[in-house]
Amino acid sequence: MAPGRPFDPATLLSRPPRRTSQTYTRRDTILYALGVGAGLEDPTDGNELSFLYERCLIALPTLAIVLAAPPFWFDEPELGIDWKRLLNAGQDLLLEGPLPVEGSVSTELCIDAVWDKGREKGAIMESTRTLLDSTGAKLAHIRQTHFLRGNGGFGGPPQPTSVETALPPDRPPDHVVELPTRPEQALVYRLSGDFNPLHIDPEVSKAAGFEKPILHGSCTFGIVGRAVLRAVAANDPGRLRRFGARFSSPVYPGETIRTEIWLADTHVVFRALAVPRNVLVLDRGIAQIEAAR
Amino acid sequence: MAPGRPFDPATLLSRPPRRTSQTYTRRDTILYALGVGAGLEDPTDGNELSFLYERCLIALPTLAIVLAAPPFWFDEPELGIDWKRLLNAGQDLLLEGPLPVEGSVSTELCIDAVWDKGREKGAIMESTRTLLDSTGAKLAHIRQTHFLRGNGGFGGPPQPTSVETALPPDRPPDHVVELPTRPEQALVYRLSGDFNPLHIDPEVSKAAGFEKPILHGSCTFGIVGRAVLRAVAANDPGRLRRFGARFSSPVYPGETIRTEIWLADTHVVFRALAVPRNVLVLDRGIAQIEAAR
Repeated sequence: MAPGRPFDPATLLSRPPRRTSQTYTRRDTILYALGVGAGLEDPTDGNELSFLYERCLIALPTLAIVLAAPPFWFDEPELGIDWKRLLNAGQDLLLEGPLPVEGSVSTELCIDAVWDKGREKGAIMESTRTLLDSTGAKLAHIRQTHFLRGNGGFGGPPQPTSVETALPPDRPPDHVVELPTRPEQALVYRLSGDFNPLHIDPEVSKAAGFEKPILHGSCTFGIVGRAVLRAVAANDPGRLRRFGARFSSPVYPGETIRTEIWLADTHVVFRALAVPRNVLVLDRGIAQIEAAR
Repeated sequence: MAPGRPFDPATLLSRPPRRTSQTYTRRDTILYALGVGAGLEDPTDGNELSFLYERCLIALPTLAIVLAAPPFWFDEPELGIDWKRLLNAGQDLLLEGPLPVEGSVSTELCIDAVWDKGREKGAIMESTRTLLDSTGAKLAHIRQTHFLRGNGGFGGPPQPTSVETALPPDRPPDHVVELPTRPEQALVYRLSGDFNPLHIDPEVSKAAGFEKPILHGSCTFGIVGRAVLRAVAANDPGRLRRFGARFSSPVYPGETIRTEIWLADTHVVFRALAVPRNVLVLDRGIAQIEAAR
């Protein structure tokens, strides 16, 4: 389905940074944790109860992805983005320290680059945003890649070959963590702010080329984040300094996600598969973990 | 565990009505629906999608129970309510019509009566509240019964025998609806406002005499509400005029709930069982449904 107006990357790239603010509560922090499946194995298990219970609450580090997140131009048809065919292609989260469990935050979104992969494949849009608390202190920095499947062939430059990779070594993983999702997982996750109908509306997901609504890439990101946090950081979000990955294929809500983790010298490499289909859903995962304090 | 101060029903009964206000959004309306299990069978099934999707949203009628609901005196130790042993014993909801999917509402809570069932059994507290919209128009009237298990034997009057009953007739039910709950159901439901730790904290539930955290009675109420709405009102909340029941035993999150429904001349009678234990969890259910328009 073609958009009503031609794609206009020049306007997109020339815009000033877009500022978004949000005040969030402990309830929002808990709802995010439920959205990425915390408590699904054993809701009152001490391991994850602190992500779900306001009296001892700790924020999951990947919460940063949804805080003061800008809505994605559903309301700006003049940009010509075919948002029904937009997919989250990857994100890379750099953390300054543990996130507050409630507060007022803001971000400034910058569109850094738009690459052309041709009419058949689509376009790649790269953006960054910095998450600040109400005093202006930096909490996190987020690099995001979106795949605009309906917007290729606009005559733009091709994507440069990525220098940085995070490929797993040729040996069995050091840790494997399997985490369930629920059939209604996307319905819970979307309440944290990404209301793209692709994740709830069967007609929209069909028009986008999927047999049924898919899970948000950023939800998979949060679930795999829980797996890595558990396997290599003793569930202590304060130890996570970086967490990034590429989304290689969608997860269908209800599928169990297997995260495979390899320890390297200074970092951790990971990937994830949708267990029932044995399909790679997330790859080039890289995490940096501080030693236990 | 005895409360720090003696129970003081006289003060409770002499208080002026307690006013509570709330502004709620479509997100709150959806979160409530997820809390009472909408979408658990098939998240994008058209039957319940309208309770979960902001673009075609309809409020579940039992949402009225959580709107502008007063917190239950956890913060007022001078009343001597042993809140760790407090249970929801029943509620009766009278509706003026369909609820708005968002808006500003208020309630005034009146404590109507406190009955003494003796030191061993506890006390019964009856209260009412009327739900008003921002123009002062009445949306719903709620009668609520709480069981104060730790507060009996204060020398008060015994509970009068109830005249009104809603016992099922001696024949098989006309409709049976089985609805699942999730192990984490109470964790989602509590985000609609009832943060009693009984429903999340294993130590609190143990102190209250339960092997693990139990589901909120009002969550069971909402789940059985969905069952009745589906069986006899074609999922049209606008047709429900009354919905009331007594909570006879707690549900453990994760249990499937079977609702048995009998049609009578002017109303509907129902009860519900926790399927895995075959235990009656809700009885004396009564509903009034308008004919289809």
